[in-house]
Parts: sequence; C-alpha cells; structure tokens
Amino acid sequence: CRTGAPEVIFGERKPAEQIAEIMAAVLHASGRALATRVSGEKAAVLMERFPDARYDAGSRMVAVGEFPEPPGDAYAVVISAGSSDYSVAEEAALTLEFLGSRVQRLYDCGVAGLHRLLDRLDVLRGASAIVAVAGMEGALPSVLAGLVKCPVFAVPTSVGYGASFGGLAALLAMLNSCANGVSVVNIDNGFGGGFNAHLVLCSMRGHRHS
Amino acid sequence: CRTGAPEVIFGERKPAEQIAEIMAAVLHASGRALATRVSGEKAAVLMERFPDARYDAGSRMVAVGEFPEPPGDAYAVVISAGSSDYSVAEEAALTLEFLGSRVQRLYDCGVAGLHRLLDRLDVLRGASAIVAVAGMEGALPSVLAGLVKCPVFAVPTSVGYGASFGGLAALLAMLNSCANGVSVVNIDNGFGGGFNAHLVLCSMRGHRHS
Amino acid sequence: CRTGAPEVIFGERKPAEQIAEIMAAVLHASGRALATRVSGEKAAVLMERFPDARYDAGSRMVAVGEFPEPPGDAYAVVISAGSSDYSVAEEAALTLEFLGSRVQRLYDCGVAGLHRLLDRLDVLRGASAIVAVAGMEGALPSVLAGLVKCPVFAVPTSVGYGASFGGLAALLAMLNSCANGVSVVNIDNGFGGGFNAHLVLCSMRGHRHS
Amino acid sequence: CRTGAPEVIFGERKPAEQIAEIMAAVLHASGRALATRVSGEKAAVLMERFPDARYDAGSRMVAVGEFPEPPGDAYAVVISAGSSDYSVAEEAALTLEFLGSRVQRLYDCGVAGLHRLLDRLDVLRGASAIVAVAGMEGALPSVLAGLVKCPVFAVPTSVGYGASFGGLAALLAMLNSCANGVSVVNIDNGFGGGFNAHLVLCSMRGHRHS
Amino acid sequence: CRTGAPEVIFGERKPAEQIAEIMAAVLHASGRALATRVSGEKAAVLMERFPDARYDAGSRMVAVGEFPEPPGDAYAVVISAGSSDYSVAEEAALTLEFLGSRVQRLYDCGVAGLHRLLDRLDVLRGASAIVAVAGMEGALPSVLAGLVKCPVFAVPTSVGYGASFGGLAALLAMLNSCANGVSVVNIDNGFGGGFNAHLVLCSMRGHRHS
Amino acid sequence: CRTGAPEVIFGERKPAEQIAEIMAAVLHASGRALATRVSGEKAAVLMERFPDARYDAGSRMVAVGEFPEPPGDAYAVVISAGSSDYSVAEEAALTLEFLGSRVQRLYDCGVAGLHRLLDRLDVLRGASAIVAVAGMEGALPSVLAGLVKCPVFAVPTSVGYGASFGGLAALLAMLNSCANGVSVVNIDNGFGGGFNAHLVLCSMRGHRHS
Amino acid sequence: CRTGAPEVIFGERKPAEQIAEIMAAVLHASGRALATRVSGEKAAVLMERFPDARYDAGSRMVAVGEFPEPPGDAYAVVISAGSSDYSVAEEAALTLEFLGSRVQRLYDCGVAGLHRLLDRLDVLRGASAIVAVAGMEGALPSVLAGLVKCPVFAVPTSVGYGASFGGLAALLAMLNSCANGVSVVNIDNGFGGGFNAHLVLCSMRGHRHS
Amino acid sequence: CRTGAPEVIFGERKPAEQIAEIMAAVLHASGRALATRVSGEKAAVLMERFPDARYDAGSRMVAVGEFPEPPGDAYAVVISAGSSDYSVAEEAALTLEFLGSRVQRLYDCGVAGLHRLLDRLDVLRGASAIVAVAGMEGALPSVLAGLVKCPVFAVPTSVGYGASFGGLAALLAMLNSCANGVSVVNIDNGFGGGFNAHLVLCSMRGHRHS
Ligand SMILES: Nc1ncnc2c1ncn2[C@@H]1O[C@H](COP(=O)(O)O)[C@@H](O)[C@H]1O
Ligand SMILES: Nc1ncnc2c1ncn2[C@@H]1O[C@H](COP(=O)(O)O)[C@@H](O)[C@H]1O
Ligand SMILES: Nc1ncnc2c1ncn2[C@@H]1O[C@H](COP(=O)(O)O)[C@@H](O)[C@H]1O
Ligand SMILES: Nc1ncnc2c1ncn2[C@@H]1O[C@H](COP(=O)(O)O)[C@@H](O)[C@H]1O
Ligand SMILES: [Mg+2]
Ligand SMILES: [Mg+2]
Ligand SMILES: [Mg+2]
Ligand SMILES: [Mg+2]
Ligand SMILES: [Mg+2]
Ligand SMILES: [Mg+2]
Ligand SMILES: [Mg+2]
Ligand SMILES: [Mg+2]
Repeated sequence: CRTGAPEVIFGERKPAEQIAEIMAAVLHASGRALATRVSGEKAAVLMERFPDARYDAGSRMVAVGEFPEPPGDAYAVVISAGSSDYSVAEEAALTLEFLGSRVQRLYDCGVAGLHRLLDRLDVLRGASAIVAVAGMEGALPSVLAGLVKCPVFAVPTSVGYGASFGGLAALLAMLNSCANGVSVVNIDNGFGGGFNAHLVLCSMRGHRHS
Repeated sequence: CRTGAPEVIFGERKPAEQIAEIMAAVLHASGRALATRVSGEKAAVLMERFPDARYDAGSRMVAVGEFPEPPGDAYAVVISAGSSDYSVAEEAALTLEFLGSRVQRLYDCGVAGLHRLLDRLDVLRGASAIVAVAGMEGALPSVLAGLVKCPVFAVPTSVGYGASFGGLAALLAMLNSCANGVSVVNIDNGFGGGFNAHLVLCSMRGHRHS
Repeated sequence: CRTGAPEVIFGERKPAEQIAEIMAAVLHASGRALATRVSGEKAAVLMERFPDARYDAGSRMVAVGEFPEPPGDAYAVVISAGSSDYSVAEEAALTLEFLGSRVQRLYDCGVAGLHRLLDRLDVLRGASAIVAVAGMEGALPSVLAGLVKCPVFAVPTSVGYGASFGGLAALLAMLNSCANGVSVVNIDNGFGGGFNAHLVLCSMRGHRHS
Repeated sequence: CRTGAPEVIFGERKPAEQIAEIMAAVLHASGRALATRVSGEKAAVLMERFPDARYDAGSRMVAVGEFPEPPGDAYAVVISAGSSDYSVAEEAALTLEFLGSRVQRLYDCGVAGLHRLLDRLDVLRGASAIVAVAGMEGALPSVLAGLVKCPVFAVPTSVGYGASFGGLAALLAMLNSCANGVSVVNIDNGFGGGFNAHLVLCSMRGHRHS
Repeated sequence: CRTGAPEVIFGERKPAEQIAEIMAAVLHASGRALATRVSGEKAAVLMERFPDARYDAGSRMVAVGEFPEPPGDAYAVVISAGSSDYSVAEEAALTLEFLGSRVQRLYDCGVAGLHRLLDRLDVLRGASAIVAVAGMEGALPSVLAGLVKCPVFAVPTSVGYGASFGGLAALLAMLNSCANGVSVVNIDNGFGGGFNAHLVLCSMRGHRHS
Repeated sequence: CRTGAPEVIFGERKPAEQIAEIMAAVLHASGRALATRVSGEKAAVLMERFPDARYDAGSRMVAVGEFPEPPGDAYAVVISAGSSDYSVAEEAALTLEFLGSRVQRLYDCGVAGLHRLLDRLDVLRGASAIVAVAGMEGALPSVLAGLVKCPVFAVPTSVGYGASFGGLAALLAMLNSCANGVSVVNIDNGFGGGFNAHLVLCSMRGHRHS
Repeated sequence: CRTGAPEVIFGERKPAEQIAEIMAAVLHASGRALATRVSGEKAAVLMERFPDARYDAGSRMVAVGEFPEPPGDAYAVVISAGSSDYSVAEEAALTLEFLGSRVQRLYDCGVAGLHRLLDRLDVLRGASAIVAVAGMEGALPSVLAGLVKCPVFAVPTSVGYGASFGGLAALLAMLNSCANGVSVVNIDNGFGGGFNAHLVLCSMRGHRHS
Repeated sequence: CRTGAPEVIFGERKPAEQIAEIMAAVLHASGRALATRVSGEKAAVLMERFPDARYDAGSRMVAVGEFPEPPGDAYAVVISAGSSDYSVAEEAALTLEFLGSRVQRLYDCGVAGLHRLLDRLDVLRGASAIVAVAGMEGALPSVLAGLVKCPVFAVPTSVGYGASFGGLAALLAMLNSCANGVSVVNIDNGFGGGFNAHLVLCSMRGHRHS
C-alpha cells in the first residue's frame, strides 16, 4: 500500500511559493496533500492559495483534501509524554492518517504519572505499531515496550533545557532501551515515526491480500 | 508469535556458569537456546556442559537445539556492508532464525561497490523487513531504503577507526537518513535489529490468522 | 550523626599497602572499616592482614568489624535496574549500613518489567530516602520519583555498550528527569548515592533529638 | 508535607493564556500560585488577570497569594556564586518558600572571594539543606560541602561563555565533586534544587510528628 | 595557473563597506571579483556601488565582471544531494568558474534516488575532479567515489535537524568513507571544495605546458 | 593510471591467514602486494609464507615484490610533524610508491621548529601534491598550504594525549585551516592521504597522454 | 603592581545602569575605568553619563580617564591571526594598558602568511610576554612559541564556522601545542590573556624594586 | 635563562634505547638529563646504562646528574589537590628544578579541606608563580587565584572516573575560572605547567640583570 501514497512535503527550508507549487502537483495527482514544518506566515500564503486547506499552528502542518478511510481495523497508537511534545506527536499522527492508516492518540502520558499509561493498556496492547514521542529523559519507549508486543518506533524530541542538549539526552536514552522491540528515528522526526508505523500496518495488509 | 519465543541470552557481562544456568532453564522450557556475546573461553565451558551446542567464533554466539521451521515464505533480509560487520550481522540473522523467522543473508554489500547491491534487488524487494548492518560512514540503509518498500532497521557497527568514534559516525548517519522507512538501534546491536524485523514478520502472520 | 562516622576508604588508585594502613587507623579509631573499589588481588593482601575482613567480589568492597545497629526504623531503599548494576548498588547499600543507616535492597527492578517495581510499592513508599541505580537508558529514577515522596538520589552506571558512552546516556536521562525530587551523582558513584541518602536519614534523627 | 503543596507552574513553553488558566485552578484549590520562566510579555498578561500578582523580572517568576508561614525554625540556605546566577537562585528560593519552607539567601559568594563565604559559616552550618547555585567553573558546591554536614543540592547555571558550553563545565565539575554530600540537578534548574531541599526539610518535620 | 587568480572575498563578518573596498581593489587588478556569504542587505550596498554586479540570493554570492573562458575541455563536476544544499554547491561552482575552471552542475542527486545519479555516470566519469555536496547523512561521496576514478572533494553541509548537529553527522560520515579517493573540507565550505578541485585541474594544465 | 593498480590490503581486523590469501591473489595478478596495519605477530606468519616479503615494524606494513618505476619526474611530498607520526607518514609514502608514484619524504618538520620547514621550501614547491601528517595541534597543513600551490592532503594522527582526544584536536584544526588548498582524511589514515595524492599525479599523467 | 589596579568591568550580562554605577565608583577611586563586552546600545547610555568616555564598537569596550604611563620599557605583544579576531585582541591590549603595562599590537599575522610574522621577529623577541589571539585552526601560538622565549598566553576565538564549533577547534589546538611555553585561557577571553601578560610584567617590575 | 637549559626528554612513545641515546647526548652537553613518562620497564634499561640515574616510580621520571642551584630566593609553588595527582605534580616540580628554578611543594591540598590551603597562605603568597594541579572538579586554581597575585598555571589531571571523562571536567572548570590570573595547559601536562612557571621566574631574573 506504500506505492501510490502521495509524498508528504517537508516545508522547513522551502519558501511558501515552492511549497504551494509542490502541493498543487500532489493535489492534482492524488486529491490530497500534507505539508510539515510550515510556519504561520507560510501557512497564510498556502491558505490563500488553497481555500480548503486546514492549518494546525501547534503541529505546524497544512492539510488539503479528504484523507482516505483506512481499510480494516488495525491501528497504530501515537503516544506522547508531555504537553510540549504535541507538535511532534501530531506530525506522526497526521502522517499516518494521510498515508491511509488508522490512529489512536494518547497524549500527555509521561512516565512520571504511570497510572495514565496503565489505564490505557488495552488500547496500547491492541495496536499493530506504536509511535512513542518523548523529550527530556526519553523514558517512555522503554516502559511501553515492556508492556506491549508490537514494534515501538521511538521519537525523541528537543523538548527540555540544559543537559537535554536539544534532544540528545532523549535520543541516547531511547537507543539504549533495555526493553525489546524499540527502534529510533531522528530528534523531532514525527514524520519518520509515523511513516515507519505505517509501513508495518502496510505489511500486514499487503500480506493478507497477496 | 512473539509470546512463547524463548529469551535470547545476553552473555556479555555474565560469567559462564550464570549463562549455563539460564541456558539450561531456557532449553528445558523450549528445547532451544541462544546466547550472544560469548567469548571463546566462556563458550568452551558451555560446550562442555551442552555437548550439542554450536559455537561460531566470528559472531560469538552459542546455539543449542533445533530452530523452528518458519511458517510461510515471508522472509527478512540481513544485509551488511563490510567483511568486519560479519559478527553483528550474524547476531541479527541467528536471532531471527531462533525466534522462528526466515532469513536471507546478503553480506559484504557496501555502497562503495554498488553493483553487488543492485544485483540482488529482487531478493531485497521480496523481503518483509530488512536489517541493514554497517560501520564507518553507515550509508547502506539510506541507499537501501530508497530501493525498497519494507521497513529498514539500521544497525550501526563500531567497525572503523579515528573519526568513526566507536560507531558514532555510522549511528548519526543512519539517524539522519534522507530516505523514508529507516529506524535505528544501538551500535553493534544485531540482536535488536533482528528482534524488530521479527516483530514485523509476526505482525503479518498474526494478522493473517486473526 | 555524620560526625563521628568513620571515613569510607576509596581503594581505586591506592596500593594495597596504603589501603591497609588507612584501614588500620580507621579500625583503631572506630572499630570498623570499609574500603570500596578493591580488586581481588588487593583484597587478598587485606584479608591476610585483617583476618576477619569480609570481601564481596561482586561489589569489590572489603569490610572489617561490626557495623552499628541503626537507631529507629527509618530506612533507605537501594533499588537497581539490571543484574549488572549489582556492584554499584551494593556500594551504596554497604555505605549506608557502614555509616549506621538501615537499608532495604530491591535489585533487578528495571522499568522494562514494571510489575516487579509496582509489587514493592509499599517498601518504596515507606522509605525516607531512595538510591536508584541504573545504566543503559537510566529511566528508573523518573518512574520511581513519580510514585514516592522522599528524595531520590539517582546513580547512573556505566553498564551498557555503544551509544551508552560509558554511562553518559543514563546520566543525561537522570539529569533531565521530568519527575520532581530527583538529584544525581557521578556515574558508578554508589558511595555518593549512599552517602547522600544517609545524610537525609541523619537530618531526620538529628531533628528529633534537638 | 509534600502532599497538599500546590504544583509550581512551568511557564517556559506555555502561552500566557494557558498559564493563566492553570494558575486560576491552582489558586482556587490552594489560595496561592507560583509560575517559573515567565517572560515579561507573558507576565503583563498575568498581572492584568491577577491584580495582586507579583512579578520579579530578574528571576522571571510570578507569584500570587500569601505563602505559608514555615513551621519550626529549620531552614534551607540558597547560596549563589555570581551576580548573574540571581535568576536561578531566586527560582530555588521562591520554590522553597512557596512549598512552605524557610529560606536564607546568600548571594554573590563565589569561591574567588573566599572570605565572603567563610564570614557566613554559622548560617551555612545551621542549615538543614543547601542549594548551591553556580555557573562558569562550578566550584562552589565542592568548597561548601567540605564545610557543612547537611546535603548540598548543586545547581549548575548556563552563566559563562566559550568553553562553559552552556553550563556543561559547571555541571561536570559538580558531578565530580571531591567533597561528600553533593548531588546535582539539571543546568539552570533552580526549581529542582529548591524542591529537593524542601523534601529534606519535610523529612525532618514528617518524622517529628509521626 | 593558481598564481594570478584573484582572491575570492569571504564576506561573512565583514561590513558592506569593507567588502566594497576589497572588491574595488580586486576588480582594478584583475577585472573580476567574487564575494561569498553576502547577506541580501550587504548585497544591496554592493549593487549600488558596482552597477554590473550580479547577486544570487540562494548562494549569497556577488560576482562582478566577466569570468575567464576555461582553457581546454577538462571540467570539474559539482554534485549535490538535496535541494537545500544549493547554496553551498553554487559557492563551489562559482568559485571554480571565477578561478577559470569549467564546471558541470548535477544538483538534487541524493542517494535515496539512486537512478538520478546512475543516469549521469558518463558526465561523472568524464570529470577531472568532483565536488560532492551533501548534508544529513552525507552518503553521496562514498557512493560516488566507488563509481569514478578522479579525486572527490566532499563538502558536508549544515542541512538537516536534530542529530545532524549542524553538519557533524555528514562530516563524520564523509571522513569515514569506505571508498577510496575522498577527502573532506569544513562544513558548508563550498569555496574550499571548489578551490581544491580547481587546483587539480590546474595541475593537469600546468603539467601539459611544462 | 588508477585502473590496473592492485588493491592495498587493509590488515587491521583480518586474521593473518586471510591477509595471506588476499596477498597471494594480488601477487598473482600484479606481481606486487602491500598490506597495512599488520601487527608483528601477523607479519611473522606472512614472512614465512612470502620469503621475499619486507616488514617495517614502525609503519606496520608488509610489502612483497618490486614496486613500479614512476613515469616522469613529478612527485608527491609526504611531510610529517613529529617523530611519533612516522608510522602514518610511511603508510602514505609506501602507498604512493606501491601505486606507482614518486615520493619525497620530509619527516620531523613540525611548526615549532619552523626553520626545518623553510629549509626545504624548494622541495615542497616542486611537488605536485603534498600529504601533510601531524598529530597534537595539527598546525602543519595550514603553515604549508600558505607556502605552496599544489593540493595539500592533511592527515591528522592520534599522536598526543589528554585534550588531543585521540586525534580530534588535529582533525578539527585541519578542517578549519585558514589557508587555501587543504582537504582532510580520517585520523591516522595515511593510506587515504597517499591514495588521494596519487590520484592528483595520475590526473596530470592521464591528461598528458590523452 | 597588581594591588591598586582598578577592576575591569565585565559588561556582558549587566544592564547599562549597573555598569554605570560600578564605573562611577571605580572612577572615583582611581580616576580611570574600563568596561568590556558593552553593546552599542549600552555604550550610548554610558557615553551620556560619562561625557569623556571613549567607545570602540569593534572591541565593544568603553574607557574613561587617562591610562597610566607604563614604567620602564618592558612591553607585552598582542598578536592576532585574522581580521575578525580584532575585537578579542583589542580587549587584551586595552586591558594591559588600563592596568599599566606597555603594549605592541601586531594584528592580522596568521600562519597562512608566514612572512608577516617573520618580518616582526625583533618585536616579538623583545617582548616580556605575548598574548596570541586566533580562531579557526588556532595555529598561531604554536608557531610563535617556537620562535620566542617569553611565556605565550593563547586566546582561542570563536571566529570560524562549521567544525570550528564556536572556538572549540582553536581551543583544542592551543592546548595541544607542541611548542614549549604556551598556556591557554577561555574562548574569546581577551581580558584573561591581557591580565596574565600583565602579571608577568608585574613580576619583573616587582622583583626589581624589592 | 631559558637558553642553555637542556631539553627535557618526553619518554612516552620512545623505546628505551632511543631515550638512552638522547639522554647520553643531553648529559654530554650539560651534565644533567631528565626524562618524563618512563615506564618501570624502560627505567630499568636506563638505570643499567646510567648507574647514577634516579627513578621515581610515582612520577615516572628518570633524572641523571646534579641539578643547578637556583639563583636568588624567588620560588615557584607546585600545589596539588589529591594524592592521585602526585605523578603530575612531581613532573612539574622536577621540571622546574631541572631547569634551575626553586620549588616549594604543597601536595594534598584539595578544596574539600580548605584549612590545609589556608594554613599555607604565606608560602603561596610568597611565590612568583604557581602550578596548580587537580583532577575531578578542578576547583583548586579558582580558589587559589583569588588568594594570590602571581600567575597561576593550572594543570588538569585525568584523575577521576565517570563524568570526569579523562580530565575533561577539570579542564573545562579551569578554563572557566572566575578568578583572575589563571591559564591552563593540557590534561596531565605537568611538564608544561612547570615550564611556564620557570619562564616567569626567568623573566624576573632576566630583568634584574639587564
Ligand atoms: N517533518 C519531516 N521530517 C522529515 N522528513 C519529512 C518531513 N516531512 C516530509 N518529509 C519527507 O521529506 C521528503 C521530501 O523532502 P524534500 O525533497 O526536501 O521536500 C519526503 O520523503 C517526505 O516524505
Ligand atoms: N523552572 C522549572 N524547571 C523545571 N521544572 C519546573 C519548573 N517550574 C515548574 N516545574 C515543574 O514542572 C512540572 C509542571 O510541568 P508541566 O506539566 O509541563 O507544566 C511540575 O512538576 C513543576 O513542579
Ligand atoms: N590503512 C588503511 N586505511 C584505510 N583504508 C585502507 C588501508 N589500507 C588499505 N585500505 C583500503 O581498504 C580497502 C580494502 O578493505 P577491505 O575490503 O576491508 O580489505 C581497499 O580499498 C584499500 O585500498
Ligand atoms: N611530560 C611531557 N609532556 C609534554 N611535553 C614534554 C614532556 N616531557 C618533555 N616534553 C617536551 O617534549 C619535547 C620533546 O619532544 P620529542 O621531540 O617528542 O621528544 C621537548 O620540548 C620537551 O621539552
Ligand atoms: Mg515489547
Ligand atoms: Mg524505502
Ligand atoms: Mg516524587
Ligand atoms: Mg559536607
Ligand atoms: Mg573512486
Ligand atoms: Mg596553498
Ligand atoms: Mg618558546
Ligand atoms: Mg589572583
């Protein structure tokens, strides 16, 4: 199911005009488009050009068009530790939905308040893949992976200060996870976490139909 | 299919006697056992205790008992870049086989000799998950992920010298992969790469039967 | 209660003879002595000189004489994540006992197996101070501090490989703990963790009597 | 005494409106509120909403309501090295007072002018816990801990330039303290230093009453 | 041919006036001038002073005067991986042309889309020197050097985020290249890459005429 | 001239038997062979197998067979800073000779004794490429490149202690060279320096004949 | 002669008003004052308050009052490598003059243009102390110290980009100097370099008079 | 007085025979010789060759011949923090004596026991230069420089573990010293500290006689 999915546009260093052009092409080809890392200023330009575009300032993403209804009921969970991790988590969640996968969001579930996590064990254990987003000490994926059996894609965030060194602390913690079934993407790379989770859901579907 | 799979024993800091004890318990429960990071000296102790144990000095693993026949024909590829990456790659491959997954090995396929890689595109594109093992500049997963659609689990190795800083160069390169569908485990963590790939194969199988 | 407590001897770079001399002086003054970071070879020299010395190869400590019976029933918990953290954890525990504090040991309680931790919540919540010892991703103190109210002294260990960078990953994780009430000592500094916990127990006792 | 204490609001990444909302809730529950890392601009919004709010631009904190009268005469000392460390030190001091602990402030007492420190030895030796705040070479906690018997919570600050690497130099120095009884929190984490010191004072009081 | 070539002006920390003065002197001596790292603001000043100056905002370079026709048909290739590497690549290309060397540009040829690279093998194999510009994982020079026989000068860029650490990931990858014939210059140093390639072309020409 | 040159064997992680086998194949194909990073022990095995092999313990290289007479009188200079850099410098020099290039060696010419360098300016200025080998502060390439016009390939070495961090100080210095015409290879990579210099000499020759 | 010298005011984090107050006090006591790291904006405030104040935007220093005539003819040299090092070099030079020492300035004498350095050997060899200021590869102190006999105080600057890592490259190079008689101060610490050189000149004078 | 002083032999990477040869030459020229970083094994070879050689295993130095009687009564102090710093401190002290300077040793004077330092203030204040040797947190030079007026040459040592990172913590602390008059040499470079202090004493003497 990966073929055919339109490309997600990486908006960080691209001028609004360049994003708009790529967006138009993607829309033309597939009827929907998604751009990440879009500043408010650039978003305004895009909203003008694409009147039905939706912008979420928190996650800095612009979406246009209907996202596909996911086949079956397999789903990925996107879980995040702190309220400041919202933007990265939502980048993962929208990426999954844009590519055609079902998502359950569990935000603000850091390890310092374990009960919130344990209260949602059923949702977590029902998932086919998990994207775990956390900054600061990055402990969430380790705790999670000990509780579930599906692959956990860990996304360290740059949330923190001082010795978090821009997300390095969380990154190293996740790479050293003592629990099985954790792999890691770049700091703040919500897109990457969502993309990998989508690939796992694809594998399942792909297999069923072949 | 993850439940029920016996635990892989991490032999690095454990005395031979402690490994032997755990091994005996695992064997008793499941009829097979696998230990990683076993020095030649410790292996000798284990061979004496378990006469049918097999030891591979290159990958430093001890295996006992028959490994299960993998169901279906889905397979994972374990691919490595240089001849010195053998030990980590084999840790991944044996982990997969031990857990019950089918494996294709493609060793010595570094990016400096691209043709070797391109010659095996069919095998690579048929895989359900790939473990890509590389030291030095760690470029293999980026090149690979551009050619295939399944998830690529990148394993940086400590092979190299000078500015490889014990595998840091490869690790950073892999985390920054410009290709979609790459996630990363710890330096030299062949086990982790194999385990994650196994989880993906499990997802497929699990789904089919439910 | 800190005054009067004999000094703990740091054995790492001292020749056996020098340790023995300091030990004799400490014994003469207080009837008991404790030396940390003592290799097996040096320990042999000390055992010969002090026939009633006890040596624990795992924690590399040599103890001589009776340790004092702790007053009251306040206690510190020393908790560790993995089996390889034993040596650092025991350095903390023996330091506490040597200085006159009561200790409860909870070893092998890593966050990947959360239930072991949750099973001992009563012991943890009854403690007046906790020393939390962990290597690899160092997530234990964050999880713990969310569950208890006393101060948690986190001790990162050098247990791990690759991107653990000799304990750096655990150290950074602990410094970035999102839970309140965590402070950190040097990598592998079990002595420091134990000493600080002892100071807290002292404060309580000191206050009661004044 | 930790239960019941209202939460300190971390203002760094929160919009003024979100801080105001949490503040209102905290005020409603406990009659007082404290927010850290509040920029002047956000503070203006809060001052309008809470007319009796007090803002200190130096420490970037907003306080509302009466702080509780500390029970007994036990106190913590907050000591800082240089004039630029004021903001972090005051974060620690106000946190202590907000949580209900008595504080003595000793600011501008760096080790390059030892006499200022030695002149206040009586105040330092009377403390039940010390928060030691320093940037640059971070030598203050080591010198201090050699002079007192209570636990010293060291707070490295990002004050400095060049090879201070944003507080890394001070952080490493504090972690390597050769004096007993020092533990460390994150760079610029005045809140953490104050919170830990408060826990020690709580232990004392808690014990007395039980 | 290196003697006689006018100096390229490094504009980064120089005020517009200082750049203008040096430019006037260089123009007077050789009839052409090139300045790198010129902000839009500074460029405006220069354009006013030198009416026939050409400014390219993407590469931040200002050129004045006719560039020399390169002797012979030997050429250098400047190849770049991603669209954000344009500015550094163009710094290399213009430097080569300014110094009197022929250049072929191959932009947007990252390793994740191998076919684009392989499609231009003839141009690459005909080059006398190659400047390979890439950020993120910096894999391009390794793949390239395995395909060609001339020297490859690798230029890491600061393009990326998170664990790219401002170009460090690409720099380390390039220094660890497993392919023969790669050497590396500073991060974002397009000028250095171009200058070195020019020296190689000079060697060839110099030799022929002696 | 690069095609046809036999491969240099990298002996570091290969067992003596494996080196011997590759060596036999290379010898058979081209009549000469060169292996780098060969320990004394492994060399003994090779000497037995290839009676006319030459081993230099200082540079840890084994050479077998006649090296080709270089065509023309163009030459590369291999220059080194301190006596401990000998091994890396000689790796570069022998690589050049093995591949068929003429070499001039200038050893022990560090910048602290500038006159030694200045005394050999004629030899340096006559070179077509320079390999500059230095540890510690790595200043040699900067001083050199200011004096000559050919490309300078800088090889940092791990010679030094303390804040040399295994060659990192020299590596960074070389990457930041303020002189034009310097590019850098990995720490201790004498082979890489020699190989690149050889490519430049090849370019010159290749051009002449085409 | 150190006693009695007025304090140099570090202006970096101090508001203009605070600098003005300290300045007034220093002026009152000694008739002269010097403030470093003063932004243009703060300088404007100071100029208004002290009408005879002199401000140099390049070095960001404000001086008020007559500086003392240095006794004798001993002098320090302040030498710098590149034009961007001016600000740090001038911080050193003015510090020396303010404290009462004679200074010779040799700016723009980097090692890539050796002749400029060698042309001034007489001035360098006549100095009693040298402050050597350099960014990028930081090679100047090593070259210098090989040519002179007095102590060389090396000041690394943050001038550079990419792998200069904010002055780290220059700092490490200087710490690893292979020439005798070099010691190092913090990155950009012109004041520190000047102060140390002044102490050496003081020693000489102090001795003569005692 | 620097001219004429024989060279100190750096023994670290030199075989015993090479050290012996240089030693013989130095002895012949000046009647005395000093070699640093000499292992016990190499020392044995040297003792055999030079029967009146003196070896100190703690500082790993070999001295031969009479050291000169220092002129006048000016002296340098070599002060060290911990007992494990002995070897580096003694390298500094013997270097000073070998070059002809008078030395006072103050060992084991770390900042955790301030009184030992304060007890020797008279000796410290009488010194013309100080070499301050410390590992771990490296706080000694800051405390010292606040108490004296002469230049302080700080020598960080690799003594410590964990987050001392081989002396990096002490190095950074010393570079960030908030006290005036501190400059720093490489980790464990006792020779460098001694050499610089000697240069200061030379300045004084040189001046007196001119
Ligand atoms: N936030 C993101 N982080 C990383 N990669 C992204 C992100 N958003 C989109 N991408 C990927 O970036 C690639 C497009 O990069 P570019 O050619 O620079 O636009 C596509 O492979 C996207 O799937
Ligand atoms: N300046 C500060 N630094 C670190 N933690 C803080 C600070 N101020 C408040 N906190 C803590 O941050 C937590 C609230 O975080 P949040 O949920 O992000 O608002 C509470 O546990 C506070 O006690
Ligand atoms: N000392 C060396 N350092 C780096 N590369 C080398 C060295 N010696 C030989 N090589 C290269 O290593 C490659 C062979 O590597 P391998 O296949 O591991 O034997 C060839 O390209 C050699 O040219
Ligand atoms: N322990 C030491 N650390 C650093 N430099 C030293 C040491 N001992 C001697 N030296 C210096 O090393 C230089 C000799 O270096 P080399 O030519 O390698 O023998 C001389 O300048 C000595 O003064
Ligand atoms: Mg799991
Ligand atoms: Mg792919
Ligand atoms: Mg808690
Ligand atoms: Mg103390
Ligand atoms: Mg090639
Ligand atoms: Mg040049
Ligand atoms: Mg000198
Ligand atoms: Mg002083």
